[in-house]
Amino acid sequence: MKTAESLTTIRFDGESVVYLDQRRLPLHEHLVHARTVDDFVEAIASLGVRGAPAIGIFGAYGVALLAQQASNEERLRQDAARIRAARPTAVNLGWAVDRVLAAPDKLAEARAIHHEQIEVDRRLAHTALELFPRDAAVFTHCNTGPIATGGGGTALGAIIHAAAAGRRLRVFVGETRPLLQGARLTMFELRRAGVEATLVVDSAAAAVMQQKKIDLIIVGADRIARNGDTANKIGTYGLAIAAAHHRIPFYVAAPRSSFDLALADGRAIPIEERSAEEVTASGANVYNPAFDITPGHLITAFVTEYGVLRPPYAESLPELVTCPSITVLMAAAGT
Amino acid sequence: MKTAESLTTIRFDGESVVYLDQRRLPLHEHLVHARTVDDFVEAIASLGVRGAPAIGIFGAYGVALLAQQASNEERLRQDAARIRAARPTAVNLGWAVDRVLAAPDKLAEARAIHHEQIEVDRRLAHTALELFPRDAAVFTHCNTGPIATGGGGTALGAIIHAAAAGRRLRVFVGETRPLLQGARLTMFELRRAGVEATLVVDSAAAAVMQQKKIDLIIVGADRIARNGDTANKIGTYGLAIAAAHHRIPFYVAAPRSSFDLALADGRAIPIEERSAEEVTASGANVYNPAFDITPGHLITAFVTEYGVLRPPYAESLPELVTCPSITVLMAAAGT
Repeated sequence: MKTAESLTTIRFDGESVVYLDQRRLPLHEHLVHARTVDDFVEAIASLGVRGAPAIGIFGAYGVALLAQQASNEERLRQDAARIRAARPTAVNLGWAVDRVLAAPDKLAEARAIHHEQIEVDRRLAHTALELFPRDAAVFTHCNTGPIATGGGGTALGAIIHAAAAGRRLRVFVGETRPLLQGARLTMFELRRAGVEATLVVDSAAAAVMQQKKIDLIIVGADRIARNGDTANKIGTYGLAIAAAHHRIPFYVAAPRSSFDLALADGRAIPIEERSAEEVTASGANVYNPAFDITPGHLITAFVTEYGVLRPPYAESLPELVTCPSITVLMAAAGT
Repeated sequence: MKTAESLTTIRFDGESVVYLDQRRLPLHEHLVHARTVDDFVEAIASLGVRGAPAIGIFGAYGVALLAQQASNEERLRQDAARIRAARPTAVNLGWAVDRVLAAPDKLAEARAIHHEQIEVDRRLAHTALELFPRDAAVFTHCNTGPIATGGGGTALGAIIHAAAAGRRLRVFVGETRPLLQGARLTMFELRRAGVEATLVVDSAAAAVMQQKKIDLIIVGADRIARNGDTANKIGTYGLAIAAAHHRIPFYVAAPRSSFDLALADGRAIPIEERSAEEVTASGANVYNPAFDITPGHLITAFVTEYGVLRPPYAESLPELVTCPSITVLMAAAGT
């Protein structure tokens, strides 16, 4: 996966956390240094860094950096709480911030989260390979590649890996309004990876399924409840309905850190509403939810670093908590 | 319907056909004079004038104007053929051009088409009223208001009329990528009509249906086959699938001139593919169909100037040909 190796997405340099500014892609590959709690909150809230796993890693490094500067424990807790609250929907951010806060060596813990994500993405992509036919037309939405995770990517990582493994793919990408993560980021990552891709407006997805013999749809997730209800980028729910209508398998690729098994179903997942200005400068009344909830019953399977999880999710998802940690697996595998 | 009266959309002034340039709305209410066959073809192809009934009226006036200038019948036929081919999907354009070409008094025929459309839209909006509950959340897509028809509008005309008739409406509008007819034109027309409206990105439609208790969806059409298969703005098919999933009535509002009863089903409707540049300036590979085909079985009913047509469409749609013409009805009603 050459993309993962050739682009710096998030890096700790001792005095700051360096990130690739996703707002300026694909026109500019611009690196920014985050040093203060305001820098971290702003970068996450304005989508300079986005993607559920990536904001987890970025938040983790942020807390580690601020711990070096903090005058006392209380101040660090306040800063961490602000980073934690910068975006509400993805569970990874809170999970990573809390993990670093609780660790004695905070920088080591942030580095561990980052390294684990790289391994998680690698395993997830290998797991996903069995889902791709030899010749496959694939549809994806938003961006779930290396820049969204700090590793090789989740759903898009699986696509890029399948192409590298010899699958002949035709990939269709929804542009993902309002902020065009599909058009700007996914098309950019697929081009870098040498994978043939076609961009469509989001509303063309159903027509593409009808006409282009789509074999599978694969997307990422920001938070998954115990029954499989999944929060992901706005538009995911409509794709899942259209996939069911066309009897196309609909897969969600996500690491264990995106599962929030404390939640019985999707109703308890907070959905971030963003500003009208992202959609229009006209001053019109706008409803701009950044995410929607796809009910578990519309999802064919979840692809994780531990394998493919199939319905009934009330049984298969809770098994995730019994899996050994990636660190243990890496040690066992000598990686 | 004050919008219909307060905006010039298409007007014959003796030496040119004046049209409101829809490319520049809502920022500029700019009137343009079309005089040559190139002017007419360019205005239609580049969506200066758009909306199936509106391009029919505009093409009709265009042929009438060119008939005044044409040196011979053959030249006029060639010009008319170019106008007819400027956009392939909507059936109204070819229908109107052919009707004017065949008429002895071409200008009178073009004016008749225009006046009939105004009456057709009025009757269609009255027919649609029975479909609106007293308090209703309504979803619509693209633009089907006065500027799309040269009359009061079809689907959006029905919404505006229902509001004027006292229905309490909350209207949700899909922005309609790539050219944003929903955001630019429908929001503009609803604001002028004083109807409360909320704009969403197209991919949020399913989430809006899930969350906002949508009572009905109503859209227009560019061409309808004998079995009810309907070509309309890209995105319509996905809306219809999501509507069926949520058991929300899905209505298509269209005048008789949009029905192409010679076609057995939607497979024979030509779908216009437009340029990649409408979607992105990045040079990426793009698939940009302007329309999709919604199968008749996903459509709850058609709303026409002759009444509401319900399934089975193979029986109800062919009855349209037996209806008296609007001219006859207008004469009978003394209007």
